[in-house]
Amino acid sequence: MNQWITRASRTLFESRWLRLRQDDVRLPNGDDITYTWVDHGGYVVVVPILDDGRAVMERVYRHTVKRTLLECPSGGLDGEQPIAAGRRELEEETGYTAREWRQLGSFFGAVGTSNERFDVVVARDLRADGQVRREATEEIEVVLVPLAELRAAALRGELEDAPSALAILLATAGA
Amino acid sequence: MNQWITRASRTLFESRWLRLRQDDVRLPNGDDITYTWVDHGGYVVVVPILDDGRAVMERVYRHTVKRTLLECPSGGLDGEQPIAAGRRELEEETGYTAREWRQLGSFFGAVGTSNERFDVVVARDLRADGQVRREATEEIEVVLVPLAELRAAALRGELEDAPSALAILLATAGA
Repeated sequence: MNQWITRASRTLFESRWLRLRQDDVRLPNGDDITYTWVDHGGYVVVVPILDDGRAVMERVYRHTVKRTLLECPSGGLDGEQPIAAGRRELEEETGYTAREWRQLGSFFGAVGTSNERFDVVVARDLRADGQVRREATEEIEVVLVPLAELRAAALRGELEDAPSALAILLATAGA
Repeated sequence: MNQWITRASRTLFESRWLRLRQDDVRLPNGDDITYTWVDHGGYVVVVPILDDGRAVMERVYRHTVKRTLLECPSGGLDGEQPIAAGRRELEEETGYTAREWRQLGSFFGAVGTSNERFDVVVARDLRADGQVRREATEEIEVVLVPLAELRAAALRGELEDAPSALAILLATAGA
């Protein structure tokens, strides 16, 4: 497999967050096609777990779907390592800091159209001693939800943000 | 929340699979920003379970990440209902048909950059009596993998395609 030959490549659009790439590709059967896809820098999804078993979650307004979703804290890597980015995003979005960090996996979110990848990390030993610094586009309400309740919601299909649902199921797998 | 006002909207690029949309948005704090995002028609992810407890999976070459990934069968909705699309994609990609279909949930895959949504459906009572009809871009090898093995791989972070990992964890939650 995978004898796709990229014969030419161009950037159709570029912003701080993504690049739209268009490649001329020769397929293994000899057909020439054009494949347009999103080049994305990746992000981290944090499952921050309080000592009492609640998780620090967010209700976030998402312009892409015109809805407010319940999500784990997350944010772009900006070229950083996942845990470093997670540390920064957790504090900036929620005001919590954590002393214990563990990475659970790295996943592709939408591989048909994008190379977007996200890392799932769990943060424990939390303190509410950080500094919230949100961007104007980050409309976030912090909510504390028992992990068992989040797991049940994910299994019922009620955590609609897939990376958050996967992160919660991974973080609670041993529970 | 969610007083984002879209003041103008344009399509920067359009293909069969996606549209790149750019909106001029006024944020709740009065700031004017430009938000560029991917408009996608959605897709279905199928967990096809054989009577012997193995799942019908695929090794698929993905140009976006230049890798071959282990995935559940999946495909675009083309305006169809999830189960109708799942029925078609399962047969076209693997040659299997199924008599029992159940929907487990509907999820957003990459909500920061796209409205891409996927439905997870489980197919049972399978027969290898269908007609494989793949597109030239569908470089697929069908593999039969025990569900318990897939679940363990997902929990170890080794099923790197997030929608497939989530689908497997949902389909095996009661197991």
